[in-house]
Amino acid sequence: MNLKSIIREVQDFPKVGINFKDVTTLLQDGAAYRHAIDECAKLIEDLEYDVIVGPEARGFLIGAPLAYAKTKPFVLVRKPGKLPSETITFEYELEYGTDSLQIHKDAILPGQKVLITDDLLATGGTVAAIVKMVESLGGEVVGLLFLMELDFLEGRSKIGDYRFESLIHYGAE
Amino acid sequence: MNLKSIIREVQDFPKVGINFKDVTTLLQDGAAYRHAIDECAKLIEDLEYDVIVGPEARGFLIGAPLAYAKTKPFVLVRKPGKLPSETITFEYELEYGTDSLQIHKDAILPGQKVLITDDLLATGGTVAAIVKMVESLGGEVVGLLFLMELDFLEGRSKIGDYRFESLIHYGAE
Repeated sequence: MNLKSIIREVQDFPKVGINFKDVTTLLQDGAAYRHAIDECAKLIEDLEYDVIVGPEARGFLIGAPLAYAKTKPFVLVRKPGKLPSETITFEYELEYGTDSLQIHKDAILPGQKVLITDDLLATGGTVAAIVKMVESLGGEVVGLLFLMELDFLEGRSKIGDYRFESLIHYGAE
Repeated sequence: MNLKSIIREVQDFPKVGINFKDVTTLLQDGAAYRHAIDECAKLIEDLEYDVIVGPEARGFLIGAPLAYAKTKPFVLVRKPGKLPSETITFEYELEYGTDSLQIHKDAILPGQKVLITDDLLATGGTVAAIVKMVESLGGEVVGLLFLMELDFLEGRSKIGDYRFESLIHYGAE
């Protein structure tokens, strides 16, 4: 199954010059979505992990069905003000300005092996922030799993020396 | 499995007087999360539907694994500015002010049978908006499925005469 052909590309979204990978067209093909999650799971079938962590909102589209398929806990990373219990907040830099993410303090126990998932690895800013949050809670990041990766942005180099897996790779555009 | 006992209740979130149902503690129990999705699926096992629709962000936590489990298409309802292709926007009233949701115009085909999912049915404002969006695209809403329902808020009456299913019910508080 050629998953890349099912992912719509939208020019100049969210701003001029970006060729946005629109995963909604894959989600709207039930067999393709299931296949994509199963193939993501295969990429890490040798990996031992206790918990899956994923950021809102598109990270939930990968992390939640993977957690279901593998009967694993799923931990949410959210925008500020969305998680109701005690949180830690991590602020990180964007191209212009800053953004913040939160995680519940009790969501990860010290020593737990953590798999971080998201739909897309681009510049890596969000994921680098999640890695730091998980580690600040005492979790051990054992892998990072993405449905798609924009190889030419070299996001991995921003995040550090971890195991990375991506199902679909995009080269230079 | 007593799922209600696994869902944390947080007093006075997001504001005084609300006893917030924190589904993150259920998600963080891998067996409970899988069980909850399987039990939700059982509630509608006799239902014929073509597409699952769910709103960001917590609706993805139910709709995405259900779509995976049943090999069904999953259609996203998002906040404005998040969907990259042509959308329709629906504005609806909140207790104070208004909010808006968007769906891709090509996400639902006329005549498709649609199952709407979310984590929680409370006052029903968001879900009523989603019903109207689906119907404006020509979809037929054949069911509404929730992990949790606050029965005392009578959200169903705000939405209309549809088939409702909720796995966990909360009575008067």
